[in-house]
Amino acid sequence: VITAVPLDGLGEITPGADLGGLTVDALARTAGATALVEGDVLVVAHKAISKMEGRTRRLAEVSPSPRAAELATELEKDPRVVQVVLDESVEVVRAAHGVLIVETRHGFVCANAGVDASNVGGEDVVLMLPLDPDGSARALRARLRELTGVAPGVVITDSFGRAWRTGQCDVAIGVAGVAGVEDWRGGRDSYGRELHATVIAVADQLAAAADLARRKDSQQPVTLIRGAERHVTPADGLGVTPLIRAREQDLFR
Amino acid sequence: VITAVPLDGLGEITPGADLGGLTVDALARTAGATALVEGDVLVVAHKAISKMEGRTRRLAEVSPSPRAAELATELEKDPRVVQVVLDESVEVVRAAHGVLIVETRHGFVCANAGVDASNVGGEDVVLMLPLDPDGSARALRARLRELTGVAPGVVITDSFGRAWRTGQCDVAIGVAGVAGVEDWRGGRDSYGRELHATVIAVADQLAAAADLARRKDSQQPVTLIRGAERHVTPADGLGVTPLIRAREQDLFR
Repeated sequence: VITAVPLDGLGEITPGADLGGLTVDALARTAGATALVEGDVLVVAHKAISKMEGRTRRLAEVSPSPRAAELATELEKDPRVVQVVLDESVEVVRAAHGVLIVETRHGFVCANAGVDASNVGGEDVVLMLPLDPDGSARALRARLRELTGVAPGVVITDSFGRAWRTGQCDVAIGVAGVAGVEDWRGGRDSYGRELHATVIAVADQLAAAADLARRKDSQQPVTLIRGAERHVTPADGLGVTPLIRAREQDLFR
Repeated sequence: VITAVPLDGLGEITPGADLGGLTVDALARTAGATALVEGDVLVVAHKAISKMEGRTRRLAEVSPSPRAAELATELEKDPRVVQVVLDESVEVVRAAHGVLIVETRHGFVCANAGVDASNVGGEDVVLMLPLDPDGSARALRARLRELTGVAPGVVITDSFGRAWRTGQCDVAIGVAGVAGVEDWRGGRDSYGRELHATVIAVADQLAAAADLARRKDSQQPVTLIRGAERHVTPADGLGVTPLIRAREQDLFR
């Protein structure tokens, strides 16, 4: 049984905020939540982390390159936003139909490098992904352990589109203390037959379950997931790496 | 708050089984579940539906075409399985690295057209996706309404890989009584700013949350999700259609 409880009243996250402390307070305040117990997972929308880490840029201070200006014209986007996207990227994967798909410096293939103008506050400010989301997850986990004695799994998320399906699903972009994938290859199904190609993207399914529990217009960046303890590990582990497809295995670039 | 409870003891699903009746029995038997209430969603792994509908083929009765034989050699697969995949498909999207990505007759882009040799029972039998998964979802919903007076949302799922991420996530392949996507475009975020491009793949996130609640080696094809009532609709609705990207919007084919 899995339970996903969005935490109430974290309020506005400001640069340098103690997100761990705010989370502990919010846990105490939220109906249906309790103090952290071993095996809990906290799923955190990256916006809270990015705001805490000051990962914003003022568009007034961005000078678009000719390449950014050209892409912006083609895609009908703000050239300054396109410049920020290019600054966050190592490769443009597709630019068409008003959509800019890139590979980010972290290795994520997604629209606009996760650069976001909504929910930031201030018309001319954009929010970027954390520089090192796995590091951010580890730091939040360590802070929570310090405050509570319990080290929950931490998953930092963003909403990604998909190549062949419409709509967005939340996925993991940073992970600590959670096995990102569960590998059943070589395992047995309920008939005792070997399972050949089943690797489950656990951290992404945690992200999706957490997003399901909240509304886009709520200020609930943190969701407590209880019941996923078999995926929580004492060590911080490999982070999001097991979820990123190696470029040489990529058939769609 | 979202709760996902896998139902116990549905047992082996046989052709012609009354899955609605089995589900009602299983609800009564499962700790943490109760009788259905309005707003509940039942997420059903397609294998249960496909078995009920007899969507199996015996490989001994499949004659591979030259095309299937050629692909099988290239991909190191069983030519008879490749033939079944081609029979279920309208287009081969990619064939490389041992992976066969197709568009199914339903319009899903996925590996092997969802044709599966695990969890079927009998070495030479493969299981296919339901012919009309939305129709299957509507039929199960109607049966549950008949038995209980409550029409839950129904989401039928399969595990799909993703272009740029490793591991599989469960996604919706058939939907009844659930709004497949939640469209926030034109809505306002928590700062009152307009949200530009946020369409949430609700049915896929329901599928992911349900999968998180069970183990691959359990026989728990049905998961009860409670707390998602704002996505449940009185009418059966548009099914999975809102989740399929139109071919002319597809940048990766």
